Amino acid sequence: MLPIGPNVTQNKKKIINDPVYGFISIPYDIIFDLLSHPYLQRLRRIKQMALAHLVYPGALHTRLHHALGAMHLMCMALETLRGKGHRITEEEAEAAAIAILLHDAGHGPFSHALEHTIVEGVSHEDISAHIMDRLNEEFGGRLSLAIRIFKGTHKKKFLHQLVSGQLDMDRMDYLNRDSFYSGVSEGVIGFDRIIKMLNVKDDQLVVEEKGIYSIEKFLVARRLMYWQVYLHKTVVVAEQMLIKALHRARKLALEGESLFSTSAFGFFLHHRVSREEFLSDPQYLDAFLQLDDHDITVSVKAWAQHPDRVLSFLCGGLINRQLLRIEIQKSMPSKQRIAELRRACAKTMDLSGPETEWLVFRGKLRNSAYRETSENIDILIKDGSLADITDASDNFNIKALSKPVEKHYCCYPKQLFTG
Amino acid sequence: MLPIGPNVTQNKKKIINDPVYGFISIPYDIIFDLLSHPYLQRLRRIKQMALAHLVYPGALHTRLHHALGAMHLMCMALETLRGKGHRITEEEAEAAAIAILLHDAGHGPFSHALEHTIVEGVSHEDISAHIMDRLNEEFGGRLSLAIRIFKGTHKKKFLHQLVSGQLDMDRMDYLNRDSFYSGVSEGVIGFDRIIKMLNVKDDQLVVEEKGIYSIEKFLVARRLMYWQVYLHKTVVVAEQMLIKALHRARKLALEGESLFSTSAFGFFLHHRVSREEFLSDPQYLDAFLQLDDHDITVSVKAWAQHPDRVLSFLCGGLINRQLLRIEIQKSMPSKQRIAELRRACAKTMDLSGPETEWLVFRGKLRNSAYRETSENIDILIKDGSLADITDASDNFNIKALSKPVEKHYCCYPKQLFTG
Amino acid sequence: MLPIGPNVTQNKKKIINDPVYGFISIPYDIIFDLLSHPYLQRLRRIKQMALAHLVYPGALHTRLHHALGAMHLMCMALETLRGKGHRITEEEAEAAAIAILLHDAGHGPFSHALEHTIVEGVSHEDISAHIMDRLNEEFGGRLSLAIRIFKGTHKKKFLHQLVSGQLDMDRMDYLNRDSFYSGVSEGVIGFDRIIKMLNVKDDQLVVEEKGIYSIEKFLVARRLMYWQVYLHKTVVVAEQMLIKALHRARKLALEGESLFSTSAFGFFLHHRVSREEFLSDPQYLDAFLQLDDHDITVSVKAWAQHPDRVLSFLCGGLINRQLLRIEIQKSMPSKQRIAELRRACAKTMDLSGPETEWLVFRGKLRNSAYRETSENIDILIKDGSLADITDASDNFNIKALSKPVEKHYCCYPKQLFTG
Amino acid sequence: MLPIGPNVTQNKKKIINDPVYGFISIPYDIIFDLLSHPYLQRLRRIKQMALAHLVYPGALHTRLHHALGAMHLMCMALETLRGKGHRITEEEAEAAAIAILLHDAGHGPFSHALEHTIVEGVSHEDISAHIMDRLNEEFGGRLSLAIRIFKGTHKKKFLHQLVSGQLDMDRMDYLNRDSFYSGVSEGVIGFDRIIKMLNVKDDQLVVEEKGIYSIEKFLVARRLMYWQVYLHKTVVVAEQMLIKALHRARKLALEGESLFSTSAFGFFLHHRVSREEFLSDPQYLDAFLQLDDHDITVSVKAWAQHPDRVLSFLCGGLINRQLLRIEIQKSMPSKQRIAELRRACAKTMDLSGPETEWLVFRGKLRNSAYRETSENIDILIKDGSLADITDASDNFNIKALSKPVEKHYCCYPKQLFTG
Repeated sequence: MLPIGPNVTQNKKKIINDPVYGFISIPYDIIFDLLSHPYLQRLRRIKQMALAHLVYPGALHTRLHHALGAMHLMCMALETLRGKGHRITEEEAEAAAIAILLHDAGHGPFSHALEHTIVEGVSHEDISAHIMDRLNEEFGGRLSLAIRIFKGTHKKKFLHQLVSGQLDMDRMDYLNRDSFYSGVSEGVIGFDRIIKMLNVKDDQLVVEEKGIYSIEKFLVARRLMYWQVYLHKTVVVAEQMLIKALHRARKLALEGESLFSTSAFGFFLHHRVSREEFLSDPQYLDAFLQLDDHDITVSVKAWAQHPDRVLSFLCGGLINRQLLRIEIQKSMPSKQRIAELRRACAKTMDLSGPETEWLVFRGKLRNSAYRETSENIDILIKDGSLADITDASDNFNIKALSKPVEKHYCCYPKQLFTG
Repeated sequence: MLPIGPNVTQNKKKIINDPVYGFISIPYDIIFDLLSHPYLQRLRRIKQMALAHLVYPGALHTRLHHALGAMHLMCMALETLRGKGHRITEEEAEAAAIAILLHDAGHGPFSHALEHTIVEGVSHEDISAHIMDRLNEEFGGRLSLAIRIFKGTHKKKFLHQLVSGQLDMDRMDYLNRDSFYSGVSEGVIGFDRIIKMLNVKDDQLVVEEKGIYSIEKFLVARRLMYWQVYLHKTVVVAEQMLIKALHRARKLALEGESLFSTSAFGFFLHHRVSREEFLSDPQYLDAFLQLDDHDITVSVKAWAQHPDRVLSFLCGGLINRQLLRIEIQKSMPSKQRIAELRRACAKTMDLSGPETEWLVFRGKLRNSAYRETSENIDILIKDGSLADITDASDNFNIKALSKPVEKHYCCYPKQLFTG
Repeated sequence: MLPIGPNVTQNKKKIINDPVYGFISIPYDIIFDLLSHPYLQRLRRIKQMALAHLVYPGALHTRLHHALGAMHLMCMALETLRGKGHRITEEEAEAAAIAILLHDAGHGPFSHALEHTIVEGVSHEDISAHIMDRLNEEFGGRLSLAIRIFKGTHKKKFLHQLVSGQLDMDRMDYLNRDSFYSGVSEGVIGFDRIIKMLNVKDDQLVVEEKGIYSIEKFLVARRLMYWQVYLHKTVVVAEQMLIKALHRARKLALEGESLFSTSAFGFFLHHRVSREEFLSDPQYLDAFLQLDDHDITVSVKAWAQHPDRVLSFLCGGLINRQLLRIEIQKSMPSKQRIAELRRACAKTMDLSGPETEWLVFRGKLRNSAYRETSENIDILIKDGSLADITDASDNFNIKALSKPVEKHYCCYPKQLFTG
Repeated sequence: MLPIGPNVTQNKKKIINDPVYGFISIPYDIIFDLLSHPYLQRLRRIKQMALAHLVYPGALHTRLHHALGAMHLMCMALETLRGKGHRITEEEAEAAAIAILLHDAGHGPFSHALEHTIVEGVSHEDISAHIMDRLNEEFGGRLSLAIRIFKGTHKKKFLHQLVSGQLDMDRMDYLNRDSFYSGVSEGVIGFDRIIKMLNVKDDQLVVEEKGIYSIEKFLVARRLMYWQVYLHKTVVVAEQMLIKALHRARKLALEGESLFSTSAFGFFLHHRVSREEFLSDPQYLDAFLQLDDHDITVSVKAWAQHPDRVLSFLCGGLINRQLLRIEIQKSMPSKQRIAELRRACAKTMDLSGPETEWLVFRGKLRNSAYRETSENIDILIKDGSLADITDASDNFNIKALSKPVEKHYCCYPKQLFTG
């Protein structure tokens, strides 16, 4: 090392501009170090909302940005709880911030599509846990408490609930951020008010009584986001097309067809991996950590020119936003209707029967698919007792909100009806 | 065509959610048709602000979104001018909307970087004009008036000025949108007020006197955006690294080295194209229109593993946000300082002298580079006369704002000083 | 008239800054003339939310501002409906704008309090209609169509529904504006989206199917505003104290006690007016049109020094925000509890039994009090049929939302429990 | 005290909804107690922007709200400075919050108008200091440190500068709040960024170098607010009319004419008070502390019916927003022009010569009137040195911004030119 210039010690107390919250401060040096790690930098290249930008052109924010936002809310929540007299040590606060920062590290590109195709049977939670363990090794065990909080094995359960629960900082941020970037202002939630109303009772995260209307609003906003954004019919059809395209490509790849892809993506196209293999053999995780949205997108773009007509139809449609037509209805479309559509497809597009199955299909939507486990949010009544929100609310509709709703769809090429 | 289902005529009067303006309406069917064209869909995959998201993680909006926003403002401006009694025919209004929608269609991925490397000597304006001509052919001449407005050959000059001038809807939208998505709230401009203050006098776009403070604010906001965002030192160093990486890759490619790339990108890596060739031989434009951010990003990602140590250092740095250190100063760094740094670099990193030139370098920043031609904005005084804003303003600082400012930088690997 | 200076014709096409919508344009000259009339200028001096600013310090916006906002939304709604092919003549558009502008002209200061005390039995709708008739005379009959729309006697019923109905521009603006100024961001509604989803079917104002989630959100936001803002316990107790103070003052006035007041307010303090008298004898309306918030506030301030201890206690409390304590509960407080509190009050504050009745009392809150008539909002299904929103929604909770909720309160001096 | 109900200890850790900052927390119990004091409750009834709401209908926020906002920013600033390692004790933090909360307590209704008429020669700063002393007595000396900070006699000067200086929290909040409520979005400043850039060097409040563009923006925003809002010509003419009306009323009162007024206001109408008397004899401050906007407004409203034609013309104009015409120009209007206008006024309105002087007059505007003392803001350069912003900025316009600008106006009745 030459004495030519100053040896600046890096200032890790950064402030990051965020359109949603104004500024996000990096609260701990280790957070800065984790953010600088390639595993997190990868999340810069994965969009939080996958293909939703085809409908909402602003919805391009990344999983890294979401992770930062959730961490910011975590700091606010911890400060609120401390302000109410709950003891949270500095170590716990740091660990909770780490846990929420890393909670989504295991997401792949276009998560839902990939989880159904390329890395079947391995959930992103599995992979996140796996990644945390790796990082913990690299960081000399400094993530152990964070991992315990993430897994729910730390004694203070409410810290885990802040990471993963009905009112966790994950969904608080993603609802907020997704509605902000999609421009669906009605999805905005009163996150600051909700956070200020959080409390802990018997080691459970609860909401104070006067926050009850905010919680109702939160639940309604969430439902609105599901049907208006996450399950918007155009978003659904695009995701289905991507799933079909990936299945088709893999089928061709396994049959020995030549297909353009990046190297890491090619690895998954040409291998079937079981959950056990994935979690035990490091080469799978290594390859997975190379993947991001760009690998998929350039491949799909290349496949739009592929000689296989099913693959090129699906991929060209995705790239140029010429999507299948989708119909949403309350009951399942009949087999007969599907059969008729497939015959029309075969005739109009000159395809074989089995080929039409890739372009004409039906399926089911269920917003409860997005709700894990139970919906119980506990309300802290002024007299100190707890009540489930469905009982505490004077308004009957909370119960209604927790009923899952099912809809059905069917998709087919527009060409069938415009000759 | 079978009578199986309804032949729905497509409704082209779409409304698009936009976080910046709330909603953007598609005003004409032809706008919808143009938006559906692959040439515009390509703009979905090109970020407006290139690498700025490395500093401002929200700055991921696309050129398509910007084009839509500018078109939205154009409609507002035309309505305002009509409300003030200026005759604008329906044909002209539609053509002006088309012109602004397409004005940036010629941008490639990471525009400034590419314009200095892969497609040297061909400006994006050239390419935009080229693309418009092609589209005009496809659309049977229906874009002719739009092209005349774009090129400034239509008799009503003020329509051209709305597309390209000191107060055009292009910069009105990009300043607004860039500050919105970067979260730099101070860059926000009073676009609605400025638009309401627009008027036409002697076929010149002018601003009414009472809008003078808004214009001043606009100019200050713009300058702030240059120095705080567009020329932010980290953004500058990332862009320089990308330029160096592209140059290095091309050098290697022309020397016959094997390099991963997508097909369209490979085409440009392996060819040198003159402006004349580009504009005359359609294969170049065809290849160009296949390019987007993803082609560059996956290639850079792959090159991070390349055996060439210069290339892999630059590309790994870009992907993992391990950037060169950059110093900004008022005067040019001395040759001697650069030479010393290069020697240190050679020693520390075990590189040859010529190799260090790719990692240690100096350069110049100039905000006026972003100002085309003259800065004159005409103010319409209440008595009907015109005055240049630098004269009309009572505040002296407008003149100051139009002076170009130069700064210098020098870049080198962080490793040199942390041994 | 001397030829000394220019005889400027007034430009009535004003643009007004509005924090809620950015800008409000005055669309017709007659709107400008009506706004300039003393009857509307009076609304500048009447706060929309009466005493809510004691809890939400920003809630100071006036009835004039609300009227302007509602008119702005009316113009947006009319433009939307015209864009969907519904014929609305220029005369009708102007008249609808006038009707909504004037719909609240009959409000007095602290409306609800006054309607229960000083001008009992005369609703503000009565007075608005009365004022419109007067203005129509002054304006030579140019308000006749507006009045027919206001009263629902014009043949196009949907115009009346835009002025007064489940989705009228009145509540669209007040929910929006009240939540904006109170800072209760959760009350914000997606007014722009709802307006864009409006349509007309069989001369009924309806909402298109894809707006259904926005309507649900609107209904939830409204309920939240009732319980969190309009019926906030501190707002309720302040309003009750004002009602008691006005009753007490009037009682004293009618008994011949001397009381400071402004002249117009004094007129009402010393007279009992029946509905018939009010609407037939012009002197009552004349006096009423002199009243605004300032008359009440200065009087209350003066009464804080009045020898009558009940009056001065109530008024001093209002002025210095030393409010009674209020308890909210699900069931009615028992007579016994009230009696006990009154005895304690008599003892602690050295008051007579009847005097304590002014300071210790109970009452009922009902959010449905704010819902006029039926809650039916018609949804236009894509196939062209109509459905009530409670049936069209897949989510059960709309019905829940329309059930009125009752709560009970009891108020008493804080002194009783702090010795 | 009876054991009838719970003796609730009041929770003083309130959270207040604020549309500008979201939420404001009451940081110390003594702040809550001060807010509850009648002296501060009075500020609820004094509008921050006096008559500006005649142009900007939303500009109705109060001095209390501003005081709360400034206190909120103070807490943010103190936290930032502590985060940078500057020692600020809890006592100092509390005292600084108190100082900024009370800094404007001495404002009367329509401050500038009253300072020129009713309480001539006594500045609101004098009165604020006076009030603080009184409160300190009531609070048993607990405000002593706050008073020393307010007066600049505490050893840590930078605390005083946060209360009163070029970048104090007072103007930070009022610019922000005034632009928010007036809807002049261009006046919005990046307060959060500026605050994060604050630092202390040699006991001076300074701004870090990278905040330089934000400061420029702040200065431009401030100038914009002066000319577009505070010195908007309609606001100026209304204020002048109020000043004339108050002078006229007082003249009549001192001549023995009967005039309606509230009791406290009447006290000032009928007395001339010197600065010495005001500050030494408590009855003046007592009367002053009874005054708020309502006293003035109801009096002006009553005077609109007064037989004195000058007074009723001015007051009727203010109440019904029929303002004098005002012309703004760069040079002073000539005596001759004024004389001609007065002659026309005498003839058209049948007034005596001296009477016309109240309705036809000229005056001067100077934005520097709003700048106290010197404009120097110190910038902390990265190397640790300080530079005045006019030198540190590379952009020349800062100097320009600090030059005072003068304009002239002349006012006269509209009637003169519309016959």
